[in-house]
Amino acid sequence: MQYRFADRIARVPPSFLGELFRVSSDPAIISFAGGLPSSALIDVEGMADAARQVMDEEGRTALQYSTTDGFLPLREYIAARYRNRLRVPATADEIQIVNGSQQCLDLFAKIFLNPGDHVGMERPGYLGAIEAFSLYEPVFHTVPLDEAGPEMAAFEKMVTAMPVKFFYGIPNSQNPSGCTYAEDRRRGVAEALEGTGTLFYEDDAFGELFFDGRPRVPVTRYLPEQAVMSGSFSKIIAPGMRIGWLYAPPEVLRAFNIAKQAADLHSNFLCQKILHRYLTMHDLDAHIRKIVSVYGRQCRLMCDLLDDLLPELRHTTPQGGMFMTATLPPGLSSMKVFYAGIENNVAVLPGTPFFIDGGGTDTIRLNFSNASEEKIKEGMGRLARVIRSCMSP
Amino acid sequence: MQYRFADRIARVPPSFLGELFRVSSDPAIISFAGGLPSSALIDVEGMADAARQVMDEEGRTALQYSTTDGFLPLREYIAARYRNRLRVPATADEIQIVNGSQQCLDLFAKIFLNPGDHVGMERPGYLGAIEAFSLYEPVFHTVPLDEAGPEMAAFEKMVTAMPVKFFYGIPNSQNPSGCTYAEDRRRGVAEALEGTGTLFYEDDAFGELFFDGRPRVPVTRYLPEQAVMSGSFSKIIAPGMRIGWLYAPPEVLRAFNIAKQAADLHSNFLCQKILHRYLTMHDLDAHIRKIVSVYGRQCRLMCDLLDDLLPELRHTTPQGGMFMTATLPPGLSSMKVFYAGIENNVAVLPGTPFFIDGGGTDTIRLNFSNASEEKIKEGMGRLARVIRSCMSP
Repeated sequence: MQYRFADRIARVPPSFLGELFRVSSDPAIISFAGGLPSSALIDVEGMADAARQVMDEEGRTALQYSTTDGFLPLREYIAARYRNRLRVPATADEIQIVNGSQQCLDLFAKIFLNPGDHVGMERPGYLGAIEAFSLYEPVFHTVPLDEAGPEMAAFEKMVTAMPVKFFYGIPNSQNPSGCTYAEDRRRGVAEALEGTGTLFYEDDAFGELFFDGRPRVPVTRYLPEQAVMSGSFSKIIAPGMRIGWLYAPPEVLRAFNIAKQAADLHSNFLCQKILHRYLTMHDLDAHIRKIVSVYGRQCRLMCDLLDDLLPELRHTTPQGGMFMTATLPPGLSSMKVFYAGIENNVAVLPGTPFFIDGGGTDTIRLNFSNASEEKIKEGMGRLARVIRSCMSP
Repeated sequence: MQYRFADRIARVPPSFLGELFRVSSDPAIISFAGGLPSSALIDVEGMADAARQVMDEEGRTALQYSTTDGFLPLREYIAARYRNRLRVPATADEIQIVNGSQQCLDLFAKIFLNPGDHVGMERPGYLGAIEAFSLYEPVFHTVPLDEAGPEMAAFEKMVTAMPVKFFYGIPNSQNPSGCTYAEDRRRGVAEALEGTGTLFYEDDAFGELFFDGRPRVPVTRYLPEQAVMSGSFSKIIAPGMRIGWLYAPPEVLRAFNIAKQAADLHSNFLCQKILHRYLTMHDLDAHIRKIVSVYGRQCRLMCDLLDDLLPELRHTTPQGGMFMTATLPPGLSSMKVFYAGIENNVAVLPGTPFFIDGGGTDTIRLNFSNASEEKIKEGMGRLARVIRSCMSP
């Protein structure tokens, strides 16, 4: 039969992400295309211990329904970490647990966006956010990123030119660019927004992963009532549990909680309990230092190999996170490199889907978290050969 | 600051569910108000074993990101059970894993509803569905239920009078009424819909919980291309894992999968693995027989006590599931009974929020799954005293 779908579904750009997860799972391919944290760095034994304790001591509670807002001790842990690490005066009441921070994108858009509302994003912007927001049919406006953050003239122009509901940004090790906002850009963004009706949506998926171990000041600290910040355990503990959170002012969180309840009642309680048990048993900072030291080495290696093997490419130099972006020589299409790469068992991600208003055809995103140094050496060698052969007439 | 929320959030009826979960957790109160399966019947040891095995044998995979559609062996299990138990020709490709079947309500509405679209529901209708659908701003139409299902004249009139996008129903042990569609109503509903553009959304949360152990024919079997069916492990294994699914025609499932990916990438993979491991290690039918025999006894006891202690109340007589509805004597308000009940440590759920177009002020929903026979005896005694005192001038 002819299904009468909603208009919103026709407006979603076709997605690469699903395809990517499939490509990434072919063991012959060295993939720099995905967005996986390193499997090798997941503390499986620690999580197994935590799971065993939860099941033995409070399994009957952990397997039952729970409250929409999430497990209180876990929310207290998150709030305390914000207070101690970022000097943000968070309380557990201001934290809502969600299914990975991707769910924040959906629910936040749901409570704020009428069709045709204006949304600001970075250019390039995070693909998962573009997909989530698109279903609420906003008008997107983008502000170009340089290595120090959004270009301020463009940012100010966008904010003053129209009633933007919110600006979505990833100030720490942005996906896909790998850029981190400089301190003055953080202040600049907050100053430009202050007193306007525009909220700042600060996606902090990567803030724990700076190679120098030093936290950056969240924009949210400068805009307490006018910003929300999302976070996730996916990159520092384990993505398969799908546990993230939103930190938001009480009135925003109330609406967000209604949307969360309507969406799926609550996030899986067993995993919330296991995660919290794990956090009480382990030194998270020590675990993160281990991750960061590996990612830092892998990132430097990838940058060095790009410089050595492909000096024609420009690339960003991340201070943390999991991604960098490289710009191909003029005239070379990232789609061509993508398909030639797959044939030669190396996968990169074409930049186009991150450019919602077009462009980016000469950029590729490279992930450095999920391949060992050995794989990076081998994979970058393959990529260099692929790009050379694409460049030859 | 003044937050500029989306119009849709203003249209959500204020929710009882969150409040209920809180009330239900006060140990002094005997609650018939919630919707919890029996904690005592959760096989904690079995789940703990399954979790241990998954962590030991494939923890690193289970804790990593996975695919949006869900763990293939789990989808194969669900499809095989449909084929064997319900004679529905399901394949794994037609199953999408979600965070409890509540998420089906959200995502299905998301892919089908434009604001102002027409949606059909039972009267009374499931509160969680009303909340989920409301955020997409449809126009609701309701068809009264009697003990054998939707009143067919009203159903046919609704379907022919306007272009209803879908009719949402719970043919098996409906929430809140406890009614089960008779066989001829199932055929009647399918015949009335056939050839129209209206889909049937069959919520089958309770189909495994018939006290006689006999599966009923799903409406979906009569309308293969024009129906979807949602299911859940919450009532037969453990709700805290938040694992449910949608069974739908391929074209619908493709759109649904896009919405799922945008909403939260995928459901928690660790719990999918644990659940599947549990299912391969245990006889699900034997486990369900145990649940059903307890629920059947508790249901009969509650019906008998209602008849003995409160003969002025009419009530439904469920064939399965977890709920029944009782109608108070004329002039007695369910809200008055609710508040008087809380003061006397017994909680019931006022029927009003289940009646989206008004009414139901003289009905209460009673849950019989989550209180032991002893608690039911004590609680129904309290309720009888409360109602008597509310009735006296």
